[in-house]
Amino acid sequence: MALGKDYAHQQCSIARALEVVGERWTLLVVRDAFYGVRRYNDFLVHLGIPRAVLATRLQSLTEAGIMEKRRYQESPPREEYVLTDSGKALWPVVCTLGGWGRNHLPSTRPTRLFLHAACGTELNAYGTCPACSVPVPPEDIEMRPGDGFDRNTDNPVSRALLAPRRLLMPLEVDRV
Amino acid sequence: MALGKDYAHQQCSIARALEVVGERWTLLVVRDAFYGVRRYNDFLVHLGIPRAVLATRLQSLTEAGIMEKRRYQESPPREEYVLTDSGKALWPVVCTLGGWGRNHLPSTRPTRLFLHAACGTELNAYGTCPACSVPVPPEDIEMRPGDGFDRNTDNPVSRALLAPRRLLMPLEVDRV
Repeated sequence: MALGKDYAHQQCSIARALEVVGERWTLLVVRDAFYGVRRYNDFLVHLGIPRAVLATRLQSLTEAGIMEKRRYQESPPREEYVLTDSGKALWPVVCTLGGWGRNHLPSTRPTRLFLHAACGTELNAYGTCPACSVPVPPEDIEMRPGDGFDRNTDNPVSRALLAPRRLLMPLEVDRV
Repeated sequence: MALGKDYAHQQCSIARALEVVGERWTLLVVRDAFYGVRRYNDFLVHLGIPRAVLATRLQSLTEAGIMEKRRYQESPPREEYVLTDSGKALWPVVCTLGGWGRNHLPSTRPTRLFLHAACGTELNAYGTCPACSVPVPPEDIEMRPGDGFDRNTDNPVSRALLAPRRLLMPLEVDRV
């Protein structure tokens, strides 16, 4: 369902942002990119997303300047998708959305914890560090599995996410 | 497109939050509720949303415990929709999304400014006050029209939003 074309919708920055990222899969692709997922197949395996939908979402994210495609191997040519600066700036949105889900949806045990790496304090619902009173950029965040994380998962990407890690660091997936 | 049903999707708090609010109209209805819009017709007029879509979104927001229906007049019976505490907790999501749109989408002049009412400082991209270093709840935010706001709008809800106002205060729409 497209939004209306009148002035109020086009100019409001919230409405315009939703035009670009207001779709569940889109923000889940962005979330995975913060977790360090970069390769098409890893997104596919981790999200359980239909191939055609993933391809379309990666293309629109690239066109919108949120992700960029980078050649990481020449022969055979292989590409990965990484967040641009504009994409990294979506962190507060992803973070606050997760905080709301954790605190306001029934029976969600946290699958992941987000800590200010400098002091080890868990971020609050605004994505800021309550101990240091600073907004924490994704580079300074350590992610760890929480109580709700299924440690017996056989999803190779989920398994790679079992170890504590900095956000945005490329994820090494053990492909057995 | 429904998300997959496997564990990773159902348990991640970001994915679960997107199941509930990950649709453009849904978050725009929530945004309008923060602006003080409460009545079905005001949502309709301000959003330019098809009637059937608005009715469905209000119903699912009510079922999800994000909004509640309140009788404000007995004869004839009239109801309004207001944010619950769980709904008000979505403020950081709406706020960070708007901040991203303002800073990272081309040529968006701000239609609305969000200030910490206590000190008059504009909120940062995390929805916190840079002067006071505190996350600011919606009750403590003053909203004012920005440079990009069309002051000549003939939309009655947009006109009502021309005056500076606290978030969540019921909006009085001049119905001429």
